[in-house]
Amino acid sequence: MPVEQIYIARGTRLEDVAPEVAQLSSQAGVGVESVSRRWLDEHSERGAHQGLMASSAPFAFTPLESILASAGDKTSSLLVALDHITDAGNLGAIARSAEVAGADGLITAKRRSAPIGAGAYKTSAGALAWLPVAQEPNLVRAIETCKKSGYWVVGASEHAKSAIWDQSLEGKLLIVLGSEETGVSRLVAEACDFTASLPVVGHVGSLNVAQTAAVFIYEWVRRTRAQP
Amino acid sequence: MPVEQIYIARGTRLEDVAPEVAQLSSQAGVGVESVSRRWLDEHSERGAHQGLMASSAPFAFTPLESILASAGDKTSSLLVALDHITDAGNLGAIARSAEVAGADGLITAKRRSAPIGAGAYKTSAGALAWLPVAQEPNLVRAIETCKKSGYWVVGASEHAKSAIWDQSLEGKLLIVLGSEETGVSRLVAEACDFTASLPVVGHVGSLNVAQTAAVFIYEWVRRTRAQP
Repeated sequence: MPVEQIYIARGTRLEDVAPEVAQLSSQAGVGVESVSRRWLDEHSERGAHQGLMASSAPFAFTPLESILASAGDKTSSLLVALDHITDAGNLGAIARSAEVAGADGLITAKRRSAPIGAGAYKTSAGALAWLPVAQEPNLVRAIETCKKSGYWVVGASEHAKSAIWDQSLEGKLLIVLGSEETGVSRLVAEACDFTASLPVVGHVGSLNVAQTAAVFIYEWVRRTRAQP
Repeated sequence: MPVEQIYIARGTRLEDVAPEVAQLSSQAGVGVESVSRRWLDEHSERGAHQGLMASSAPFAFTPLESILASAGDKTSSLLVALDHITDAGNLGAIARSAEVAGADGLITAKRRSAPIGAGAYKTSAGALAWLPVAQEPNLVRAIETCKKSGYWVVGASEHAKSAIWDQSLEGKLLIVLGSEETGVSRLVAEACDFTASLPVVGHVGSLNVAQTAAVFIYEWVRRTRAQP
């Protein structure tokens, strides 16, 4: 996440405490402010600041309408929606797979979702700096909006009767992924055009959602790519 | 990992400190031993024991020959080899995907590899309790051994000229995955029958190796499954 401001304990110098941070913040034009240790204690998690803190701007979401508008003319486009994914590592990993595969955007639910902070940023390997993310209060309505823009909507569900390979995943596609605990919720699944599963053979009942996402995303890549 | 023994600081009672642990260890027949706080300090990581520790048995590896022997008669079988994967979370996630897809085993390198401990166990969601894992001192030799047992060997490499879908991934297949930093090493890539890549469209240069693994593993599932 882009750093906005550095805070350092009064009486210490950034050049002494963290020379690399001093150098980088100077290069990037990021301000350095001296504050009391009590202020740092109050504003840090469990007081774990070691005399130094940085603040970052909140993640800049993109309106869903803007994502759909910029993908408007394409005959094939990929969007990925997260139905209350709560693990920031999973959110970042899915963002990375989507960005690498050339997706046009990610849709997250406003509540009961992992925050897009340092954790998600790190596992995304920078993808969250490139991939537009819409934050939607109502995922069912967001799905309907995508449908009106010509997207087919597939829900990844282990309860689906047909495997991913027996379904139509070409063209403009929205892949909906469910939460780690409960999967795609009933209302969201009903809003999808169809659901599809990945076969399970082993003893462990399901793939991790970030792996499921990668397989679905690359199945779309396989179907839409130009044949060699 | 199965717990072998519980250690508790002398002068405290397990029933008081951690009633659930007391109950479970009693049910599972796991011994509880009183030890000095100094012993706990010396045997724990950074003294973070809070008066309680547990020990587990080392992971039981399976000889590669046993894995090959038990898969011997099959016309299709999947093995996954890790060329110095150093992140325990990635190792666990790959083990989970392999087990879910019905793989017959995992091959890890003896040195410069993530340990199979609590971290890998957790992300594997229990898969490491089911999936046989061979630990090999020489990965090139292990690949040659698999070839002699009739396996085709594909290395997942972002430098490969052909995409995964343009290669033969049916039947008995060994998928080789490279380290997070440097990918599949030159000698290991040369030992493979061929290498294959996943197309990259976005700004982030590559998928995470656990996601690459899932896509390769499920491409094998797609090719080998009975058509509906």
